[in-house]
Amino acid sequence: MPAYKAPVEDVLFLLNDVFHIERHNNVAGFGEATPDVVEAILVEAGKFCSEILVPLNRQGDLQGCTRHADGRVTTPDGFKAAYDQMVEGGWIGISCPTEFGGQGLPATMTTVINEFLASSNLAFSMYSGLVQGAVAAIITHGSDAQKKKFVPKMVEGVWAGTMNLTEPHCGTDLGLLRTKAVKQADGSYKISGTKIFISGGEQDLTENIIHLVLARIEGAPAGTKGISLFIVPKVMVNDDGTLGDRNGVVCGSIEHKMGIHGNATCVMNYDNATGYLIGEENRGLAAMFTMMNEARLAVGVQGLAMSEVTYQNAVTYTKERLQGRALTGPKFPDKPADPIIVHPDVRRTLLSIRAVNEAGRALVLWTSLFGDIAHRSQDEKEKQHADDMMGLLTPVVKGVLTDLGFESAVNAQQMFGGHGYISETGMEQYVRDARIPMIYEGANGIQALDLVGRKLPKDGGRAAMAFFAEVQGFVNAHKADDAMKPYVEPLNVSLGHLQQATMWFMQNAMKDPDNAGAGATDYMHLFGLVALGYMWGRIVVAVNEKLAAGDASGAGGGNVLDAQALKNKLIVARFFAEKMLPETAAQLARISAGAGSVMEMGMEGF
Amino acid sequence: MPAYKAPVEDVLFLLNDVFHIERHNNVAGFGEATPDVVEAILVEAGKFCSEILVPLNRQGDLQGCTRHADGRVTTPDGFKAAYDQMVEGGWIGISCPTEFGGQGLPATMTTVINEFLASSNLAFSMYSGLVQGAVAAIITHGSDAQKKKFVPKMVEGVWAGTMNLTEPHCGTDLGLLRTKAVKQADGSYKISGTKIFISGGEQDLTENIIHLVLARIEGAPAGTKGISLFIVPKVMVNDDGTLGDRNGVVCGSIEHKMGIHGNATCVMNYDNATGYLIGEENRGLAAMFTMMNEARLAVGVQGLAMSEVTYQNAVTYTKERLQGRALTGPKFPDKPADPIIVHPDVRRTLLSIRAVNEAGRALVLWTSLFGDIAHRSQDEKEKQHADDMMGLLTPVVKGVLTDLGFESAVNAQQMFGGHGYISETGMEQYVRDARIPMIYEGANGIQALDLVGRKLPKDGGRAAMAFFAEVQGFVNAHKADDAMKPYVEPLNVSLGHLQQATMWFMQNAMKDPDNAGAGATDYMHLFGLVALGYMWGRIVVAVNEKLAAGDASGAGGGNVLDAQALKNKLIVARFFAEKMLPETAAQLARISAGAGSVMEMGMEGF
Repeated sequence: MPAYKAPVEDVLFLLNDVFHIERHNNVAGFGEATPDVVEAILVEAGKFCSEILVPLNRQGDLQGCTRHADGRVTTPDGFKAAYDQMVEGGWIGISCPTEFGGQGLPATMTTVINEFLASSNLAFSMYSGLVQGAVAAIITHGSDAQKKKFVPKMVEGVWAGTMNLTEPHCGTDLGLLRTKAVKQADGSYKISGTKIFISGGEQDLTENIIHLVLARIEGAPAGTKGISLFIVPKVMVNDDGTLGDRNGVVCGSIEHKMGIHGNATCVMNYDNATGYLIGEENRGLAAMFTMMNEARLAVGVQGLAMSEVTYQNAVTYTKERLQGRALTGPKFPDKPADPIIVHPDVRRTLLSIRAVNEAGRALVLWTSLFGDIAHRSQDEKEKQHADDMMGLLTPVVKGVLTDLGFESAVNAQQMFGGHGYISETGMEQYVRDARIPMIYEGANGIQALDLVGRKLPKDGGRAAMAFFAEVQGFVNAHKADDAMKPYVEPLNVSLGHLQQATMWFMQNAMKDPDNAGAGATDYMHLFGLVALGYMWGRIVVAVNEKLAAGDASGAGGGNVLDAQALKNKLIVARFFAEKMLPETAAQLARISAGAGSVMEMGMEGF
Repeated sequence: MPAYKAPVEDVLFLLNDVFHIERHNNVAGFGEATPDVVEAILVEAGKFCSEILVPLNRQGDLQGCTRHADGRVTTPDGFKAAYDQMVEGGWIGISCPTEFGGQGLPATMTTVINEFLASSNLAFSMYSGLVQGAVAAIITHGSDAQKKKFVPKMVEGVWAGTMNLTEPHCGTDLGLLRTKAVKQADGSYKISGTKIFISGGEQDLTENIIHLVLARIEGAPAGTKGISLFIVPKVMVNDDGTLGDRNGVVCGSIEHKMGIHGNATCVMNYDNATGYLIGEENRGLAAMFTMMNEARLAVGVQGLAMSEVTYQNAVTYTKERLQGRALTGPKFPDKPADPIIVHPDVRRTLLSIRAVNEAGRALVLWTSLFGDIAHRSQDEKEKQHADDMMGLLTPVVKGVLTDLGFESAVNAQQMFGGHGYISETGMEQYVRDARIPMIYEGANGIQALDLVGRKLPKDGGRAAMAFFAEVQGFVNAHKADDAMKPYVEPLNVSLGHLQQATMWFMQNAMKDPDNAGAGATDYMHLFGLVALGYMWGRIVVAVNEKLAAGDASGAGGGNVLDAQALKNKLIVARFFAEKMLPETAAQLARISAGAGSVMEMGMEGF
């Protein structure tokens, strides 16, 4: 039976000692996020996750969701009670504006809690995760009346939200979408069409579901320029806020999937359903795009979450499983065999997961803090820089951490040998669940194209240049320090590879864009390794500062890393530098080989 | 609904034009394997696979196997009829000696057919696959009476076979095994104990099952030196060959697994079951080891098989799925969108699978031919060389091709976007099924240790030196040829990396064996890339010879590659050299970094 302990100490270390979030006290919500408040919230969240959500995870997988003949959907046993508890605890609106009943804390707090939730029960966590995106969409683009009518109940958690983009013939290429909207005399619209892959499209957890739906208004232009965004409530909401009749939207079926069985993935049939336009006509895709960074960041966090929980369980098993002896002679001669964690190949596997988890968490928090600053800062220059960085880092977080998260889950499962293939162990569920973040919210190949084709050249490369300058500045500041050399020198080499790859694109993608397309995925992962290497560098600096100050005991409520835990981070950082950063040389070589051999063969030759 | 077409043309090209199997006509069985016989058999096998086994694959996954209260196990609907058809066709004994009713053809023929079977229906293919291992064990180590009593019915296919090694507390470390054997007055033994993870331990396909069981004879030494191998029939066999009473072995339960649901993975309870010693007392592990190369090769073939079938289905989908436009402008302006195969990232993904499939198949056949020569040649020198090479290549084939096979399945699934996560598409089943070959028959970390710790140093490094010399010889023979440079130069670089890594182990593993352990997995994959690169080199030479001879029409029954198909191989070969071989630099860097950061952290720090 898998277990999970939320990495509260590591998060506090990152927030307080690496990123010094107290520096942002001038930004709305950060003043309230004092170290003791943050600690108390995270401890409580971790407890809820370990005690309530973890035990529901396997049951959710086994039982899945059930659609009844009338279109109702029942979630697995225990999900409703757990969701009620989450609503009661006010967890869903923790970062939402206070004017709508939220607690107004930084979105970064939600990012952290989303990691804990996803590690505990990915399928469950998606129900509340999608509410946050829908709330953000309505707050950013909706009218005051729409906000007042829909947002408070969503922030409270008694109403859920969904995103309806995909149609059977139309996924990445939203320009093909056919769902239509017909304007009514009262200014509302009648929405008709079929949407697929709608996570939480129907469920029994909340009183109402606020669907956000992309549709084409009658007479609108073809392609992406004719798409509008609508609010379509499952149950109509009266002007006094009470619930009215059922709207014309129903769950037609739920998908049989590889994993996340506890989340209902619905085919949603809209049949003259009443919808309310959000923002301007034909500007729906733009409205969707402004939410996309947050949604993609949240999916990247799911990759991290799966990596963390599978690491924890693999560590437990490799310490317990006795099999064979250490290569250097028995370590536990009194036992029939040594625990398999004595083997270098097992440790290598565990460390490669751990090295992703710690730096990945740092990257997620760093990106999320940029998001908070971009949305909440009063300083225009700071705001723009933060927006640049968040935009640049988001596809990296989404694409790289979900690829690595899946890889971690597979590698952690491998540590269990044959037992990892057996369902009761729980590891194979993690692998099946960890597969979806690589696909949804823009498959990872799309993330790579977003990075290379949009984020890199945007504003004359301003964001990328700022990133390179920051990492290069870090390298320069520390390269003369012998204690930093094992981390900084390999980072400098990899940064050089990244810059060369960027240059290669600049020189070769103009004349043939396929040169960018063929190298995009490698570039995204190269960027990811440099970003993770930089995060490790920042962690090492913080560790050394704390050790030098004899400040291992930290402040606050006891969730602190002791000196040994801090020193262990130096080992993992070195492992990352020695064993994972060398990959960037191969990535650069592949990128520089260009599109020739990729594009040459005729389609019929495949 | 997934489909599959056996790659008969490619196999014939490899056997006839790359490996020139007619050269081995002096080896038993090869004289009968004339090109037309081979072609006829493979065409027939491919037909059986596509028409009978492919349609049963999803049903097998959905339905799985059922254990009844009395211990009987029912396989999925259709399996029994298909198995009967396989028995009737004489497929199981195709490479078995004619004296036991087989057809005496090279084992390489079985290797090829095993690929087709596994691509079509991995779970099904395991039932017959395990018979081959059991037959080999009895033929090699059994007495004449045992052979006469058990082998003919197994070769015919009406009796199956299993391998019983694993116990709950004992997997890799067989020295811990507890199943006991008590000698009886009549020379037989009473076997008692519990074995787990027994593939096909019980089923309804065959009249009898011949279990091969590792057990410890009462009073035998502890550890691996006290293990013996026994034949334990499910139903006792009378001296006249008729079936007698049920023996004391029963299926206690079947496992719930991530995949291969159509294969019954059984807990087998032995309770004073009658068993017959094979070979000498306490020499069971040695007997097991002689079969291990064949069994591991067969599992490596499963990895290749999953890579091939997922490639074929991804190609079909990416040609049909219309979404977005090519980066260089619309390729099908009359359609609403281009098929996604126009995108470089999609092609890169498909080619990285294809590059593994073609060279992987060559590596499998090359290794299998060494196996045939090692077992059947009359020439002692040739025999020894072949045995060396088969021993060296087997962990590479098993470890590398199953890792890559799973990676291919995941990448192929990714091409389907969200649809790949839906069960009906069939891709997620392939991913779940493709996961097991990485684990069973020695988890891949064990393969890496076998390569680095046993096969590399064996006989003073004779096998490795022969391999290096052969690849170096190939490079030297072709490096001056401009047409060969794109393939040979990168291969030469990677071969250099492999030799440097080997040297590094020689210099550093002696003083600290953890240095070998920490680099073993990287070394195995580095070795694999060089071996695959060498195979591509051999393929390119054969392609150029055929093109130069204008011999694209080939000989035989029409299953030939045309000139375009041959030229396409040059493109895939170049893709491999440009995009996949560069990885060896990173592998060498990781290996040379040694065990320091891997071993430093205390166990409690994980």
